[in-house]
Amino acid sequence: MDLTFGEILLWELLGTAALILLGCGVVANTVLRRSLGFNGGWLLINFGWGFAVFVGASIAAPSGAHINPAVTVGLLAAGDLEWSLVPAYFIGQFAGAFIGAVLAWVTYKLQFDTHDEPQNTRGIFCTAPTVPNKLWNTLTEVIGTFILVLWILTSPTVTADQEGLPNFGNSALGYAAVMFVVVGIGNSLGGPTGYAINPARDLGPRIAYAVLPIKGKGSAEWGYSWVPVVGPLIGAILAGLLSQVLPG
Amino acid sequence: MDLTFGEILLWELLGTAALILLGCGVVANTVLRRSLGFNGGWLLINFGWGFAVFVGASIAAPSGAHINPAVTVGLLAAGDLEWSLVPAYFIGQFAGAFIGAVLAWVTYKLQFDTHDEPQNTRGIFCTAPTVPNKLWNTLTEVIGTFILVLWILTSPTVTADQEGLPNFGNSALGYAAVMFVVVGIGNSLGGPTGYAINPARDLGPRIAYAVLPIKGKGSAEWGYSWVPVVGPLIGAILAGLLSQVLPG
Amino acid sequence: MDLTFGEILLWELLGTAALILLGCGVVANTVLRRSLGFNGGWLLINFGWGFAVFVGASIAAPSGAHINPAVTVGLLAAGDLEWSLVPAYFIGQFAGAFIGAVLAWVTYKLQFDTHDEPQNTRGIFCTAPTVPNKLWNTLTEVIGTFILVLWILTSPTVTADQEGLPNFGNSALGYAAVMFVVVGIGNSLGGPTGYAINPARDLGPRIAYAVLPIKGKGSAEWGYSWVPVVGPLIGAILAGLLSQVLPG
Amino acid sequence: MDLTFGEILLWELLGTAALILLGCGVVANTVLRRSLGFNGGWLLINFGWGFAVFVGASIAAPSGAHINPAVTVGLLAAGDLEWSLVPAYFIGQFAGAFIGAVLAWVTYKLQFDTHDEPQNTRGIFCTAPTVPNKLWNTLTEVIGTFILVLWILTSPTVTADQEGLPNFGNSALGYAAVMFVVVGIGNSLGGPTGYAINPARDLGPRIAYAVLPIKGKGSAEWGYSWVPVVGPLIGAILAGLLSQVLPG
Repeated sequence: MDLTFGEILLWELLGTAALILLGCGVVANTVLRRSLGFNGGWLLINFGWGFAVFVGASIAAPSGAHINPAVTVGLLAAGDLEWSLVPAYFIGQFAGAFIGAVLAWVTYKLQFDTHDEPQNTRGIFCTAPTVPNKLWNTLTEVIGTFILVLWILTSPTVTADQEGLPNFGNSALGYAAVMFVVVGIGNSLGGPTGYAINPARDLGPRIAYAVLPIKGKGSAEWGYSWVPVVGPLIGAILAGLLSQVLPG
Repeated sequence: MDLTFGEILLWELLGTAALILLGCGVVANTVLRRSLGFNGGWLLINFGWGFAVFVGASIAAPSGAHINPAVTVGLLAAGDLEWSLVPAYFIGQFAGAFIGAVLAWVTYKLQFDTHDEPQNTRGIFCTAPTVPNKLWNTLTEVIGTFILVLWILTSPTVTADQEGLPNFGNSALGYAAVMFVVVGIGNSLGGPTGYAINPARDLGPRIAYAVLPIKGKGSAEWGYSWVPVVGPLIGAILAGLLSQVLPG
Repeated sequence: MDLTFGEILLWELLGTAALILLGCGVVANTVLRRSLGFNGGWLLINFGWGFAVFVGASIAAPSGAHINPAVTVGLLAAGDLEWSLVPAYFIGQFAGAFIGAVLAWVTYKLQFDTHDEPQNTRGIFCTAPTVPNKLWNTLTEVIGTFILVLWILTSPTVTADQEGLPNFGNSALGYAAVMFVVVGIGNSLGGPTGYAINPARDLGPRIAYAVLPIKGKGSAEWGYSWVPVVGPLIGAILAGLLSQVLPG
Repeated sequence: MDLTFGEILLWELLGTAALILLGCGVVANTVLRRSLGFNGGWLLINFGWGFAVFVGASIAAPSGAHINPAVTVGLLAAGDLEWSLVPAYFIGQFAGAFIGAVLAWVTYKLQFDTHDEPQNTRGIFCTAPTVPNKLWNTLTEVIGTFILVLWILTSPTVTADQEGLPNFGNSALGYAAVMFVVVGIGNSLGGPTGYAINPARDLGPRIAYAVLPIKGKGSAEWGYSWVPVVGPLIGAILAGLLSQVLPG
């Protein structure tokens, strides 16, 4: 698996676009009044994001299925990734996230146009805390991402190949395992902030929300936008460092 | 695995019939007032269709488990299937879909007869948009099917055998993976049009609805019927062509 | 795997008892007013029965995990089981089902005692049609069981060992696959009759309901009791016969 | 796998902390009014605990993934574990459970502070019966834990390695199987007492509830605290003893 810079970028872009298309899609389905999944509940949203990770990660298998800058940074902190590859991952992830958000909007275009509370559509694209407090909101994102990255770095189901890229056994099973972890984090730790646990997942769609011609849209809330970027990165670094000192 | 034309037709017919029996069945369960699953919600419907795909695809394993003309067309577009086999797939799929829809009606015969809003029974058989607009509805079907077929063509869990037929590792795992993808597409992209993502899934039951003696039934809405056929085929062709230019 | 008559009986008894303890348990949880799962919905019930099959089938792995007389009869009809072993299976299954129902009652004893609609407790133990009609109710059970047994007999994930006993690959995966099929049948075909699809599942707990000192209990409805026995057996025989004429 | 006392303690502590962080987290999410999962229902709670077990068990893979004193005791009773290792397991499990509960509180700090029924927050940390009766409540916990430990000791998916430690095949599949069993027990047997089925899961967070500065908190209900410790241990011992006399 000797990928070029461009191949890593391409696979991460495709995988992250699929992740965000399906992830923002499930929120659109539950938020927009004329969707069949309107008011579908928290479990529907969490399964939606979980299956989104399943699809996105298995599409991005050739590049190690990061589809999340926090995973890339966690592998760096664990000493399992070359610094020179990082820009390929980041560019693919953020570009893919933006594209996925645009596609989610296209999919639900008619539902956006006929929605009766257009100001609440931001929640389809990016996360927001139920009780705003930058310090504690950040801490919540740190804890959620810490669990995700620690699991990836220590789980016996995820093994590193020769390149130092993690892989998930190249089978549906590894991707199902990641899906279980993401649904679990959503179910359990997503209540306070909507669990970004992925800087690209939040920032890419937030930019899309700001630029797309969404009918009656509200503010993109840039004041909060750094929390779901910084929190996940701190959590990932802590998990990466911890994995270096764990035995065996 | 050197199947005859008739064997392909038979397995696709059996698998698609199981798919549609279970798929239309879960919608009947949530729509018909005297069913135990009445008003069961969107997640129930999506898991219902997902497990329907699991059952149908594992029954149709010998023929490569297409059970969807869009999958057949996607493999054609990817250059992975011989044109001469296509009629066997299509005939099996459409005939199976019709038979499955009839069986779903037989299963729920008493509930159909005692339902108090008979005009809403069409939704048990075929899809309809929540906001009608042929162009955007088609686009939604294109995007959902594109994700499904792209995943099938690129996923490391799906490998082609000697015949050029895709298989799913001939294990429960591959079929579980397809189920996850279908539930994911339903959760995330099904809100606007009810996600046909399969021409046989929509047209076969629509014909069944038109011909079955369902008490108080309404129109089969033929004006919309081409959208869930054409949209999925376009999405499948796009995914097939993309898969040809992707590296690796 | 050269099991004695007694070992088959023992494993089937243990597995079926676990199946019915968990299966009747989940219905108790949703029906009894002072349970934490009260009014938990159809998807909860179906997942409950699905996981019940998972646990019961993996416990009964040594005897081939029938835990259902319809599976035993389906294998007979397919020519895959010796007639001499059938009594061991049947005795284990019906005795286990009775014991499991008693244990479910013990688990929920306090909730039974404090329930305010004691006459609706029969539904915790055995199935009932929402629209009574012996012919059509039987047909619904035939169709559901046909799908279950056809899947078991044709699925590539289920292979026969030397003894002619089916097994599920002796891995969690095979049992998960059966769980998916059962949840799918419940979601999709369970609406009209509550899906017995297993004569022991219905008759064993019905007998338990009749003999247990349940506070304020109603009739065991013996008039319906043959439907969930005869329907599944017919469905199983049809699937067994079909499997004999299928190619490959 | 020749682990030192300290390594066992460390892995059990990490795994149990992850289990309880996610497990108490999902209850917080459904109980606290300003959480996104507020009133999410019993299935959400059960999937939450199931995925919590998945994450915790796969993190604790090196020590055999007990993360539950009842599992440790069940293995002792089955004759599959050395007595000298037991303190390492117990210390890791109870310390991890306490730490996990503290982290769950940190994650939901703002939601605790703004909750309007602070006296009902104990249910986030530890279990309580819906109908108090020490004898029958204990019996419910005995039955639930018996099923869990019997499944672990007999399932073909769980094999013992050279050290006598159980493992789950070191693959996502084994951990998924445990998750299925735990969700199943929660769905089916959790209604009366909230299914501790794990002494550390109940006692660790109960101590955390007693000592944490939770706004407006109520009593820790010490009078009930021995039930979810003693019940699971009895169930585990019974399962361990039974497994010794089962054939094969």
